[in-house]
Amino acid sequence: MSVAIVGAGPGDPGLITVRALELVRAAEILVYDRLVSIELVEEATRATCIARDGLTQEQVNELLVRHGLRGRRVVRLKGGDPFVFGRGGEEVQALVVAGVPYEVVPGVSTLTAVPALAGIPLTSREVAAQLTVVTGTNADGSELDYDRLAGTPGTLVIFMGHRRLAHIADHLILSGRRADEPAAVISRLSLPDSDVRVATLATIADAARALPQPAVVVIGDVVAHALPRAAELRSIEAA
Amino acid sequence: MSVAIVGAGPGDPGLITVRALELVRAAEILVYDRLVSIELVEEATRATCIARDGLTQEQVNELLVRHGLRGRRVVRLKGGDPFVFGRGGEEVQALVVAGVPYEVVPGVSTLTAVPALAGIPLTSREVAAQLTVVTGTNADGSELDYDRLAGTPGTLVIFMGHRRLAHIADHLILSGRRADEPAAVISRLSLPDSDVRVATLATIADAARALPQPAVVVIGDVVAHALPRAAELRSIEAA
Repeated sequence: MSVAIVGAGPGDPGLITVRALELVRAAEILVYDRLVSIELVEEATRATCIARDGLTQEQVNELLVRHGLRGRRVVRLKGGDPFVFGRGGEEVQALVVAGVPYEVVPGVSTLTAVPALAGIPLTSREVAAQLTVVTGTNADGSELDYDRLAGTPGTLVIFMGHRRLAHIADHLILSGRRADEPAAVISRLSLPDSDVRVATLATIADAARALPQPAVVVIGDVVAHALPRAAELRSIEAA
Repeated sequence: MSVAIVGAGPGDPGLITVRALELVRAAEILVYDRLVSIELVEEATRATCIARDGLTQEQVNELLVRHGLRGRRVVRLKGGDPFVFGRGGEEVQALVVAGVPYEVVPGVSTLTAVPALAGIPLTSREVAAQLTVVTGTNADGSELDYDRLAGTPGTLVIFMGHRRLAHIADHLILSGRRADEPAAVISRLSLPDSDVRVATLATIADAARALPQPAVVVIGDVVAHALPRAAELRSIEAA
């Protein structure tokens, strides 16, 4: 394998996979996202490290192909998982077209880390048997289908929807979703400064306005069934 | 932390997280699922290892609480991620009630590993902006809401639906989902004997009948946009 498309996990460097860390340590070229922790970049002691920030997707693809064709050990290290609303697919496509061998190493997605780290069970046998995941804006800039989303049962997770949350919440309520439905915004999940705001669909945009990016939005009754987080439990103990 | 609820990842032992492997190696008591690879169980060289098979959920909860209260280093190692259609929440709840400190370590979910390892991009900016995830049967044994699922746009992922797939596919088509919609079953994802069958909604149950468990079902146009998998690319190279 000369090019590896690798998920770094949600932020905490301990949440990278064993296989991914091996590849980072052996890399000759590392192309990393802004959301990847500096500790992980520092593990690439043999590599030329290139920040993805400031490059277009086409430039990233071109970098991977060029070094891949030369047989260099290239690692493309992406926040979360490379494919869950990432653009790993486009990078793999470029490698396939150029005939460059590649490997994909999945990572712990922010989606998966929500229940584990924020205590919100996205699915629950009693409360929500269905999970729906969307991004806050469609690729073509068009509006979400609020009528349909308002009628969808179970839990709704919105990636990249924090900045437009007032707009999204208003339209969901106008389309018939309950104004008092529990909702949460989880900011910087798995990082030391992670923070959560819990409110209702009507009030969550105001409640979470000050939270830093990145953030994920969860709407549904499961929010009201959140478990005490380990950190809270520790402070209860210490008190 | 005396009890850790830990995701082992989808099967390949290299897809456990660094933090999870540390905890396994330091464990005094390890309670592991059948789907966890033997290589990972063998990493728990200091631990009394207890297979979860044959225990009821109540017995598992009781084990975790009892050893947790004694201050032992307990690791509950679960296939995939502990919370994505797992029952990590019920175990955490038991620990909370008993006042046992706990930690949760998310894992690479089978859901996340589908696109990375089977080449099927569950979401795609062009093809499917929405992802819906359900289990093949509701907790109370009732039928899925086929009318609603037939009208849901984007990609549909079904966990634990392989055995009932003929029934599920028939009902989705009767409720209006396209009979020629691309569909795939991915068996034993990330393991050396992983296998994928691709067909249409009308034919997938027959096509995938012989695949071994566990298996996940993906329905949607993204299936037709599957990327060549690294393994296939290797065989093309070798030919």
